[in-house]
Amino acid sequence: MADAAHHDKTARQLRLLSDALDSGRLGPVRRLVNTLSPAEIGNLLESLPPAKRNIVWGLVDPEDDGEVLVHVGDDVRESLLAEMDTDEIVAAVEDLDIDDLAELAEDLPDTVIEEVLKSMDRENRERLEQVLSYDEDSAGRLMNPDVITVRTDVTVDVVLRYLRLRGEIPEHTDHLFVVSRRHQYLGRVSVASLLTHDASTPINELFNDEQPAIPVDTSANDVASQFSDHDWISAPVVDNNNILLGRITIDDVVDIIRDHAAHQALSAAGLDEDEDMFSPVPRAARRRAVWLGINLLTAFLASWVIGRFEGTIERLVALAVLMPIVASMGGVAGTQTLTLMVRGMALGQVGMGNVGALLNKEVMVGLLNGLAWAVVVGCVAALWFGDWPLGGVIAAAMVINLVTAALAGVGVPLLLRRLRIDPALAGGVVLTTVTDVMGFFSFLGLATLVLL
Amino acid sequence: MADAAHHDKTARQLRLLSDALDSGRLGPVRRLVNTLSPAEIGNLLESLPPAKRNIVWGLVDPEDDGEVLVHVGDDVRESLLAEMDTDEIVAAVEDLDIDDLAELAEDLPDTVIEEVLKSMDRENRERLEQVLSYDEDSAGRLMNPDVITVRTDVTVDVVLRYLRLRGEIPEHTDHLFVVSRRHQYLGRVSVASLLTHDASTPINELFNDEQPAIPVDTSANDVASQFSDHDWISAPVVDNNNILLGRITIDDVVDIIRDHAAHQALSAAGLDEDEDMFSPVPRAARRRAVWLGINLLTAFLASWVIGRFEGTIERLVALAVLMPIVASMGGVAGTQTLTLMVRGMALGQVGMGNVGALLNKEVMVGLLNGLAWAVVVGCVAALWFGDWPLGGVIAAAMVINLVTAALAGVGVPLLLRRLRIDPALAGGVVLTTVTDVMGFFSFLGLATLVLL
Repeated sequence: MADAAHHDKTARQLRLLSDALDSGRLGPVRRLVNTLSPAEIGNLLESLPPAKRNIVWGLVDPEDDGEVLVHVGDDVRESLLAEMDTDEIVAAVEDLDIDDLAELAEDLPDTVIEEVLKSMDRENRERLEQVLSYDEDSAGRLMNPDVITVRTDVTVDVVLRYLRLRGEIPEHTDHLFVVSRRHQYLGRVSVASLLTHDASTPINELFNDEQPAIPVDTSANDVASQFSDHDWISAPVVDNNNILLGRITIDDVVDIIRDHAAHQALSAAGLDEDEDMFSPVPRAARRRAVWLGINLLTAFLASWVIGRFEGTIERLVALAVLMPIVASMGGVAGTQTLTLMVRGMALGQVGMGNVGALLNKEVMVGLLNGLAWAVVVGCVAALWFGDWPLGGVIAAAMVINLVTAALAGVGVPLLLRRLRIDPALAGGVVLTTVTDVMGFFSFLGLATLVLL
Repeated sequence: MADAAHHDKTARQLRLLSDALDSGRLGPVRRLVNTLSPAEIGNLLESLPPAKRNIVWGLVDPEDDGEVLVHVGDDVRESLLAEMDTDEIVAAVEDLDIDDLAELAEDLPDTVIEEVLKSMDRENRERLEQVLSYDEDSAGRLMNPDVITVRTDVTVDVVLRYLRLRGEIPEHTDHLFVVSRRHQYLGRVSVASLLTHDASTPINELFNDEQPAIPVDTSANDVASQFSDHDWISAPVVDNNNILLGRITIDDVVDIIRDHAAHQALSAAGLDEDEDMFSPVPRAARRRAVWLGINLLTAFLASWVIGRFEGTIERLVALAVLMPIVASMGGVAGTQTLTLMVRGMALGQVGMGNVGALLNKEVMVGLLNGLAWAVVVGCVAALWFGDWPLGGVIAAAMVINLVTAALAGVGVPLLLRRLRIDPALAGGVVLTTVTDVMGFFSFLGLATLVLL
């Protein structure tokens, strides 16, 4: 993959828009904004500081308001909703699909939810309540109850006539679902097969029952991997009795994959993927302070270890100069192993079946690199301070810390998973604590033993 | 999002498979493997150590071999191809779609390519050569030339009869593309509209020309963002003269998004997203050595800065104990800003229009957190060493380094982008070099001025 500086179109739009806003010409801004898709408008709003964001939000075609709200993070959504009165919010969201409405529901004021529910017919109200009853990160919450079903005992012709009568087909319908009289899921018929087969062909000759439906309590991540493993466009969702409840479509899955990637990247730095790039300073500072505080504790731990060797450093100040090198190399090597592990675990590629082989390989890699860089660092240190025993000590500490880093890189994420803590979130902090402590301890400890 | 330990199904399969392999019962292994989709088999192969991987690869249904090869990383692909002879490879790949074949082509031996080209008819051979002539990360390389086109002057009935005659529709066909006599792209007709409209409706009443086609030289990342901005299933690709060349489908886009996320996560640790989890130890060690070497240079730079203050540390060894705290807090705070920037840049949300406002916000956040943690660290240091001026020095250094971290967190990725270096790759190293150097320099420098 090339570098990350893509999405040039958005950057260009942002520039144009910013210039137009600065000059106060709102007509061109309105025209520019309303050529964009709701997802693009959402992206643009995310990238604007609050004052400009509110101006642009006021210029968005009210018809797109609901879709735009679906496409922004929680923080930005909150700031946009704060600019609207109840009537505007109700008008914006009442025409959304059930799954989109469910996604917004928890951010909407109670009065709005009541109004929206009142404006719906009974069937849709019940559907929304059903979707909302499932866990947030489950298939039930992702599904849309608006599904076209057919029965086995009809022909292609009957189905085609039914579709023509219906007049509208839900977006991303690549399959119709075949159900029993009791609405149990039996299989699926591709739209392509309806187009290519003779009108008199019975549905039971076309339908495919190989792939079971997705149980409603499947996790969102599992749904995403099933979609990409099977190249699905849409998939049926069923309850425990195999009753068809709705369907999930690829557009929602793409959002899950993107959100998951954002979560992985941001949580490693102690950030929230829903954070507004322009969230108010006190709020942003408060959120990040927690992460800095955790890191401060681990930094104090490392300092305490160094403090145990104050006497040694007093007698040989070169140790203070060199000690960050051992700690830092351990942190870098350990992070490499950790990153591979976290990714492998997210893909389900790490389990009891291969963890021994993995540990073995990582320790060997750590040992090889430890030996190689020990020679380099040892020689540089010895020549710098004219002290060959000092070079020997830092070389030995380097080997010890790079092997420790490999052990921690494999062990820490496994331990965190066992403790039900997200390794993508906490892995880095725990790992560097281990490599810092071991780096300082092995270097200063060996120095105390050998050099004094 | 919940934690990353998902994909439980794969982990379970891995366990089952590993047990069966250990017991030498290959029958159950073969049955288990061949219930999986090619993507799932690929995932499983990635997670097996080389010896077991080769056994399982031998058990995969030869019909799936080609698809499996498409679904694994470069390193693993190379190891699988090494187990096959030319005839097997040719048999595996000759039935692949053109876009998949193009993806594999560079990893195949020349003799295989020649054989495959010979086995193709002239039309497909020309198509493959055309696809291969485009840049690797461009729309041209992602497209499949197998497209259904229609003309404006026909009716729905004619199209339906044509499809029935054709008998087969390429996967993920949600739209047919409307072209002129010269094969120029004019617009698209949804399959849904063919199903819901009367047979006598002319195509020119149904077709949609609002969305322009994707130019063949568009970057893969741009293609991915257009797909997710517009919720497309498929999109047409055209050359400079608007001649329709092929189409890109959502399954390839999902792969791009996943690869891009993997690239972002792994490159931050100096790793390659195509790396085999079980690559041979010498090769893995060599690859990682480069990253460790770069880090070593920056660590020596930090040590050199500390070395400038040897005299100061000699007289006040508490400085050596406390100095890692200032550097480490700067690194953590800077990484938070950097992570937000890299993500915003990847989404096109950062440009000249808002970078001033962003810098302003980040510096304020850095200042607030700097002041807050300066008080904590200053008090702890003063009480620990019974030295209030020392507490004051570390507090001041903390504020300086957290503001520096904010400046570097915003500035470093912008500078790298200008230099055409991927900020996701190099941002972390450059940033922590800045915060380490400034952390040690400000703390030890202030100490020299104030405390001696």
